[in-house]
Amino acid sequence: MVHYAELPVNSSHRSQWIDITGGVQSILSSSAIQSGVVTISSLHTTAGITINENADPDVGRDFFRQLERIVPADASYHHREGNSDSHVKASMVGLSATIPVQSGRCVLGTWQSIYFCEFDGPRSRRVSVTCIGE
Amino acid sequence: MVHYAELPVNSSHRSQWIDITGGVQSILSSSAIQSGVVTISSLHTTAGITINENADPDVGRDFFRQLERIVPADASYHHREGNSDSHVKASMVGLSATIPVQSGRCVLGTWQSIYFCEFDGPRSRRVSVTCIGE
Amino acid sequence: MVHYAELPVNSSHRSQWIDITGGVQSILSSSAIQSGVVTISSLHTTAGITINENADPDVGRDFFRQLERIVPADASYHHREGNSDSHVKASMVGLSATIPVQSGRCVLGTWQSIYFCEFDGPRSRRVSVTCIGE
Repeated sequence: MVHYAELPVNSSHRSQWIDITGGVQSILSSSAIQSGVVTISSLHTTAGITINENADPDVGRDFFRQLERIVPADASYHHREGNSDSHVKASMVGLSATIPVQSGRCVLGTWQSIYFCEFDGPRSRRVSVTCIGE
Repeated sequence: MVHYAELPVNSSHRSQWIDITGGVQSILSSSAIQSGVVTISSLHTTAGITINENADPDVGRDFFRQLERIVPADASYHHREGNSDSHVKASMVGLSATIPVQSGRCVLGTWQSIYFCEFDGPRSRRVSVTCIGE
Repeated sequence: MVHYAELPVNSSHRSQWIDITGGVQSILSSSAIQSGVVTISSLHTTAGITINENADPDVGRDFFRQLERIVPADASYHHREGNSDSHVKASMVGLSATIPVQSGRCVLGTWQSIYFCEFDGPRSRRVSVTCIGE
């Protein structure tokens, strides 16, 4: 059984992560899938998907600050749109995440949330959610 | 339903990405799968898979140049094969990508292509493509 | 067909990778799945999953040393638990891996092993293994 839907995400800063765990679980719950996996993908090239801590917002601040140190927005680049760093960051963090499903729920650790990672906002974005299982 | 095939890829430089979107779509189209996901995996340890922009080739040049700044080929390493950086880059970029399938097509954003990322070429490589769905 | 199990992993150092290929294959073999994919996920936010070389242990030493250069444990961070670097490293390496299955075996390249990547050990950890296929 396969269930597919897209989740709209609106970012408000150049770099930020947005917790989409609730939106993903909602799409999963609207299917009859009890056991399997769900794949969450960014449909863009300057935004990725990751899983990280949902308790202390400082984790997200450190994450983006450290990525900025590694891949500075203002290093010398060829691409003329001013977002070369965003493309590199998206590929470093990854464009998708695949999560187990049991009893109709995303299987996540206690501190885990699913994050949409914006690296070139603010923008209106789309995330695809594909649930597959039985 | 599961369909598996391998895609040969030949790189011509030490570091480069090669657009394999057409090859992946071909394998998917040779199956009867209309809805599901396709997982594309590098069968090597010094080459990865990512998704990024297909319009401006400068994005790829910036990508490899910035990765080289972060993980220089000539930093001090223990491994004696001269490709320690390639192993690190492969794990940073990731060894596989999973992409949704709808109406028998890979679901990709407007600017997205699937790239085989060579970090220790030139070599003859193999990419596994697993289509799963209904 | 879906088969789910969890694999316990005990780390003994702050940073290390642990080869879990045997454990993953064991879980896969206890299912009847012959063809499909297996998704291996870290249920934590300071530990990831990657695939890399299993022959020369120096590859792992170089991997962790280079990550430490990129994301130093002692850079200035906001998060007060002393493991901000671990959170960043986990998202850079990725929280999961998806691997093809053929003839009931994980399809891996000659030199590939599946590694649990500890970035904030020593700890007792859990890895989820979801096999899906026919």
